Amino acid sequence: MSITVMKFGGTSVGSIARIKSVADRIISKLGEGEQVVVVVSAMGKTTDHLLELAKQISERPKKRELDMLLSTGEQQTIALLAMEMEARGYPAISLTGWQAGIRTERVYGNARIEDIKTEILLQHLSDDRVVVVAGFQGVAQDQEITTLGRGGSDTSAVALAAALKASLCEIYTDVDGVYTTDPRVVKEARKLKEISYDEMLEMAYLGAGVLHPRAVENAKKYHVPLTVRSSFDTTNGTIIKGEAHLEKGLAVRGLAFEREVVKVTLLGLPNEIHTLPTVFQVLAESNVNVDVIIQNALDEQETSISFTLAEAGLADALEVIKHNKPRLKFQEINVEADLAKVSIVGSGMVSNPGVAATMFKTLSDEGIKVKMVSTSEIKVSTVIAADQLNKALNACHRAFRLEEAPETSSAGVE
Amino acid sequence: MSITVMKFGGTSVGSIARIKSVADRIISKLGEGEQVVVVVSAMGKTTDHLLELAKQISERPKKRELDMLLSTGEQQTIALLAMEMEARGYPAISLTGWQAGIRTERVYGNARIEDIKTEILLQHLSDDRVVVVAGFQGVAQDQEITTLGRGGSDTSAVALAAALKASLCEIYTDVDGVYTTDPRVVKEARKLKEISYDEMLEMAYLGAGVLHPRAVENAKKYHVPLTVRSSFDTTNGTIIKGEAHLEKGLAVRGLAFEREVVKVTLLGLPNEIHTLPTVFQVLAESNVNVDVIIQNALDEQETSISFTLAEAGLADALEVIKHNKPRLKFQEINVEADLAKVSIVGSGMVSNPGVAATMFKTLSDEGIKVKMVSTSEIKVSTVIAADQLNKALNACHRAFRLEEAPETSSAGVE
Repeated sequence: MSITVMKFGGTSVGSIARIKSVADRIISKLGEGEQVVVVVSAMGKTTDHLLELAKQISERPKKRELDMLLSTGEQQTIALLAMEMEARGYPAISLTGWQAGIRTERVYGNARIEDIKTEILLQHLSDDRVVVVAGFQGVAQDQEITTLGRGGSDTSAVALAAALKASLCEIYTDVDGVYTTDPRVVKEARKLKEISYDEMLEMAYLGAGVLHPRAVENAKKYHVPLTVRSSFDTTNGTIIKGEAHLEKGLAVRGLAFEREVVKVTLLGLPNEIHTLPTVFQVLAESNVNVDVIIQNALDEQETSISFTLAEAGLADALEVIKHNKPRLKFQEINVEADLAKVSIVGSGMVSNPGVAATMFKTLSDEGIKVKMVSTSEIKVSTVIAADQLNKALNACHRAFRLEEAPETSSAGVE
Repeated sequence: MSITVMKFGGTSVGSIARIKSVADRIISKLGEGEQVVVVVSAMGKTTDHLLELAKQISERPKKRELDMLLSTGEQQTIALLAMEMEARGYPAISLTGWQAGIRTERVYGNARIEDIKTEILLQHLSDDRVVVVAGFQGVAQDQEITTLGRGGSDTSAVALAAALKASLCEIYTDVDGVYTTDPRVVKEARKLKEISYDEMLEMAYLGAGVLHPRAVENAKKYHVPLTVRSSFDTTNGTIIKGEAHLEKGLAVRGLAFEREVVKVTLLGLPNEIHTLPTVFQVLAESNVNVDVIIQNALDEQETSISFTLAEAGLADALEVIKHNKPRLKFQEINVEADLAKVSIVGSGMVSNPGVAATMFKTLSDEGIKVKMVSTSEIKVSTVIAADQLNKALNACHRAFRLEEAPETSSAGVE
């Protein structure tokens, strides 16, 4: 008998009616002969409500106590779901993070899981119980309750799947899978049957909330096959797994993109070995997240550095830069706003040298000027004008024939 | 340095504003040089809300899961209160029942505390922290979360005070102490400065919710001095303690009473040794709570048994009795409704044989007919017509001069 871990987020358990639907899902999985561990988040707006209470006390409530407070949300869901299973005649037991043996480091609000003691979990499974575990929480030394930060329940689910050597970890969410790109922008966008962990990491920021990158990283690390699927219908989702059986000549898997990107250029910097690290150290110290970085040395004396960041972070970034002008020694700042980033993502890219060229030509044929380029082994990103984003996405989607489903044919499409 | 345990009920922590007032109280107590352990209930209607959710799933939700669900209420309060203390610069730490080492038997919904591991609590106190403990909950073997049933937070507070050898356990509630009788009925009713554990147990059902009898029993067992006081003003409350220094010639401490009492009489029962136990065994099996019991044998062959119970339980009781007619062998049932019970309560009664006589004469002088009498070492109860209750209470209050404060005079008033 094999174990499946099923994870349901806050929307999927947002009411008693939804909890009953989740129970349907679990019962159907039991019918397939699986042993089931369920991981749930807090119901709908519970966490927001608790945060609001804390905020009435302090703008910066003590993190330990915030974890104590927030962890009650998931505890309520596990109790209600286990109740529902029992009421329908299926033995079930709810376990909090500490009861489930989810040991974390002692960091409040953003703890990492160190270890999961699986004896109790395995005992309940072998006693034919559905085990319902509170996501997002764990226990550190001295019996301290911790929470895992954003995407914590995804992380709990993957960690449990890894520890229990589960055959599959299913992430139920409000979308029905991972698409080649956003279907609201490119109408031919197609749901992927499979995607690799690394590709998923590059695509993750597309539909924010589909799956937390930390969960994907852990799934990759521990070889846990993941499925992202809808909790509201029964269509197959997208399988996220290792590289091995994925590649069928496919170079590009999907198109990721970001809007509201700005480009900042520091001109007239001294061309010295310390210039580049100093700039980004200064930004990092102030928690400014930068994305694409380009350095362009003009001559032996002078260089310029450009980087992109989210528009929301621009004011902070400029303040930090101006404040550190004596240390950075630049002569001028240049800001270009209203930009967007388009990336082609695919594990097959590294062995297909023509892919980047195809992308550039496609954009050029559409009259789209590429302002910055950045590449990794599985991604080529270009920064373009924001008002050309839709045109770029549709053109690239067609150019790489992403609307076709290559996985069903062993020959592939390229 | 001595330890004070302060317990605040649901109304006292019903909002963030109230939690801030509770923090004021704690800070004031710290100013007296005390080490403070605080026990809190769930905020206001939280428990009701959670019960409502459970009821949407099942009329009889699994008790283990109900404990899992309900225990989140107190956990939220401890987190918020500890946050508030920290935000005001007073080191504090919240602990759930299991973190505080409150070990119970493995009975869901109504567990009894078996043991409290005090090391962690004492460590936090010696580190100058206010320890905020979730009331109403504990942990049984195998890390199972349990709740303590009605009045559970009072019980938690008393048990913690006993285990920590606290000098005092303060129960903050929405009344300012224990009165000689209900001030709404007898306007001369006086707040008692002191009352013994046993007297309190007899008085407990007066203002329901002042203090749970189980907590008083435990306080008596472990010699924990209790104070009942208001969480909304700073007047002194009532001290509840052992007998030793209480008695100053005072025979009657207060008047307890119950409304909506009915009397059931079974006539024509066989006068046999098994008759009495059979009747009450039948009622107990069906969870019918009876109060005053009188048996009156008419002759060698026949007897009658009367008992009182709360009006709300009458329908159930009659159904049980009729259903068991073949076993009980009675000939007739007689029901008398619209009754009330008046009791005089006082530890000094046992050494004052004239006390019962005084009560009966007082009632008789007022033209009040006594329908049933029941006595214990510290109580004389009479059952009378409900419409004569107020007159009876006022007359008895005057007759025993309860409006006078005997505790301030060493000679007493009798």
